Amino acid sequence: MGLGIGMGLRVGVVGGGQLARMMIPPAVNLGIELHVLSEAEGSSARLAATQIGDFRDINTVVKFAEGLDVLTFDHEHVPRAVLDAVAGAGVPIRPSADALASAQNKLVMRDKLVALGLPVPRWAVATTTADVSEFLATFHNQPVIAKTPSGGYDGKGVREILGPSEVTDWLGDGPVLLEEKVMFVAEVSQLVARSPSGEMQTWPLVETRQSGGVCVEVIAPSSASEFTSNHARHIASTIAEELGVTGVLAVEMFLMESGDLLINELAMRPHNSGHIFTELSLTSQFEQHLRAVLDLPLGSTDLIAPAGVMVNIFDGVDQVGVRSALRANPSLKIHDYGKSARRGRKVGHVSLIGTEWESLLHLARIGASEITGNPVP
Amino acid sequence: MGLGIGMGLRVGVVGGGQLARMMIPPAVNLGIELHVLSEAEGSSARLAATQIGDFRDINTVVKFAEGLDVLTFDHEHVPRAVLDAVAGAGVPIRPSADALASAQNKLVMRDKLVALGLPVPRWAVATTTADVSEFLATFHNQPVIAKTPSGGYDGKGVREILGPSEVTDWLGDGPVLLEEKVMFVAEVSQLVARSPSGEMQTWPLVETRQSGGVCVEVIAPSSASEFTSNHARHIASTIAEELGVTGVLAVEMFLMESGDLLINELAMRPHNSGHIFTELSLTSQFEQHLRAVLDLPLGSTDLIAPAGVMVNIFDGVDQVGVRSALRANPSLKIHDYGKSARRGRKVGHVSLIGTEWESLLHLARIGASEITGNPVP
Repeated sequence: MGLGIGMGLRVGVVGGGQLARMMIPPAVNLGIELHVLSEAEGSSARLAATQIGDFRDINTVVKFAEGLDVLTFDHEHVPRAVLDAVAGAGVPIRPSADALASAQNKLVMRDKLVALGLPVPRWAVATTTADVSEFLATFHNQPVIAKTPSGGYDGKGVREILGPSEVTDWLGDGPVLLEEKVMFVAEVSQLVARSPSGEMQTWPLVETRQSGGVCVEVIAPSSASEFTSNHARHIASTIAEELGVTGVLAVEMFLMESGDLLINELAMRPHNSGHIFTELSLTSQFEQHLRAVLDLPLGSTDLIAPAGVMVNIFDGVDQVGVRSALRANPSLKIHDYGKSARRGRKVGHVSLIGTEWESLLHLARIGASEITGNPVP
Repeated sequence: MGLGIGMGLRVGVVGGGQLARMMIPPAVNLGIELHVLSEAEGSSARLAATQIGDFRDINTVVKFAEGLDVLTFDHEHVPRAVLDAVAGAGVPIRPSADALASAQNKLVMRDKLVALGLPVPRWAVATTTADVSEFLATFHNQPVIAKTPSGGYDGKGVREILGPSEVTDWLGDGPVLLEEKVMFVAEVSQLVARSPSGEMQTWPLVETRQSGGVCVEVIAPSSASEFTSNHARHIASTIAEELGVTGVLAVEMFLMESGDLLINELAMRPHNSGHIFTELSLTSQFEQHLRAVLDLPLGSTDLIAPAGVMVNIFDGVDQVGVRSALRANPSLKIHDYGKSARRGRKVGHVSLIGTEWESLLHLARIGASEITGNPVP
C-alpha cells in the first residue's frame, strides 16, 4: 500500500464468517487493512478476503500471515501446530495460542475455571459408560448435560441425556464433559475486551434467549441486579486477565434465582450475544476487538440508549422481505451476513435501540419475521 | 455471486474517494454489493474497487455499470454523454443525469433556484470585464464573490474580488457567476434524502465552519431557531422534489442575523457536513443514500444524543497520533480515509456525540490535533 497511508495497520482474520464480515465496517472507519483467509469463495467476509485456503494447513496460514501486524480469528478451530508456526514466523497471534487452547477444549477450560475459583455447574469427566451412570445417579437419574470437549457451537456437541447409551458414540472419541442440568431463571452473557497491555473494558451484561441450543434473541442490558451485573463483570475480567486473553471474550452464564451465576460457555472472539452493541454502545465489539488485538487504546462501552434488542434471522434474507421490514419500521437496523439461504442457517440479525426492551423486542421480532417470511414467535 | 445470497442488490459508485469509502460499512450491514469505479489503484474506497478506469470514458463506465441495479456517484464530475450512455444501456442513474446537470453548473442551478422562488444572494452573470465592473459598482466597489460555473469544490473555483482584473483568466473560459459577499452570522447545511418513489427524510440542520473555503468543523444540531430550521428543511425538500433528486442532497446556506437563509452551494451526494450523522443519527447519510438510490424505504433520522460535533483531519494520520487521540478520549470516533499524507489534504475526520456541543468541540479539536500533530485551533 506504500507508506503513510493513514493508519495502515494490517489485521489478518482466519475464517470468513459473519464475525470477520462485521469487522469490516470498523476497519474501514479506523483505516485498518483487514485481510481475511476464507475457506471458500463467496464467504460472508468475501469483500475483505485476500486469500482462499484451508486454515488447518500450516503453509497456507503462514503465507497468509506474512507482513501482518497481528493475526486474529473468526472461529476457534485453528490447530495448535498452525498457531505455533505463525507465532514462530514472528507474527503476533491474538488471542494467543495458549489462551486459545483453553477455549478449544472444554475440559482444559473447566480445570482453569475451577483453579480460579470461578462458579461452574456441578460436573464430571466421563471416559466410560460407568462414569456416566455414576454422574446420573448423583442426580437421581434426572437428565444431565453431556458436552464434547471440542468442536461444539450453536447447540452442536451438546446433548441432554438420561442414560449412558446416549453418549457411547462420543465416548469412542475420548472423554466427555458431564454437567448438571441447571435450573436457571435466565441465560446471560458478559463481554469483555482486553488488550496485550492489560487494558480491559466490559459492556453491560445482556440476557440471551436460545431455541434448540441456538441464540435467537438478546436483550440489553439484562435485568439482573447491579450486584449480579458487577459479579458478571468480575468473572469475565478475571478469566480475561488470568488466561491472558487478548481481544473480545464472551462468557455465557446461567443466572440462578438466588442471583448466583454459573459459567456455561466461553468464546474468545466477538460473539452473537454482543451484536447489539454495534448500535447500543459507543464502541461495537468488532471495533473493540480490532483495537484490542492491535493494542490500541480501547473505546468507551457507554450505552447510547437505555435499552436494545437483537433478533437473529434464520433461513434466508430476501429483497422483498427487507423492503417490508424497513417500511414497517424506519428505526430497524438490518445486518445481512451475505449468505445463501438454507433452512435453519443464521443469515443475519436485526437490532433496535430505545427506552425499554419489551416493545423493542416485539418490533424486532416483527422485523425479523418480515425479512424471512417466517411467523412471528 | 450466485442466487439467493442475502439482499444481493448491486450498487455501483463512480469515484473512489472517501464518500464511496464511507458507503462500505452500510453496504456490508445491509448486504448490498458495492462496486466502485476508481480512477487509480489505492483509492480511499479501494476495498470495494472492482474496476480502475477513467469516469470520462463512455466504454469504461458502460462496462462498469453492466449488471448493476443502480449507478451512483462519489462526485459530480461525470460528463453528460457518459451518463446518457449508461442510462441508454438500461442501468438506472441516481441522481439522474438531468438532476446532476443542475448540480454540475452553478448558472443552471441558479436559474432553477430563482424559478422556484428560493432565497439566494444577489447575483449576476458576467461574460465581460464590464459586467464585473457593473456588479462591483452596485456594491460600491466593496468585495464581491466570483465563482466558476463548474468544477469548483473545497474553495476551488471561488474568489473574493475587488476588481475585474481578478477574474480575467476565468472569463476567457466563459461566463462567471458573481454574488454579493453575504454578511452571515453562521453557515449552515441541510441534508435531505429522496428516493425515486418520492419518499423524503431530512436530518436536523447543522452549522458548518470553514477555513479558507474548506469545511473544518460541523456542529449538530445548529442553534438556529425552530422556525429557521423548518425553513431550511422546506428549502432542501423543495429542491429535492422539484429537481427530482434521488439520493442525498446537501444544501449549504448562509444564516442571516434576521433568521433568513440564503442558498450558497449544493451537493447531490453525501456531503462533509453530514458526516456527524454516522454517529449522531439512527441512519447515516451513507446508509440513507444507498437506501434512497435503491428505492428501499428510508431510515429514521432521529438523533441518538442531544448534540454532536465533527472535526476534519488534514495533512496526515499516523499510528502514533491515533493512539494518543484514542487514549486521551475513549469516546472519540475516528474516520480514516486511507489516504497518503499531503499538506492541506483532507484525510479523515473525528466525531463526538454527547449533551452539548461546546465541550464536545473542544475535545474533538484536541483529538484531531493529536492525530495530525498540528496545534489545536
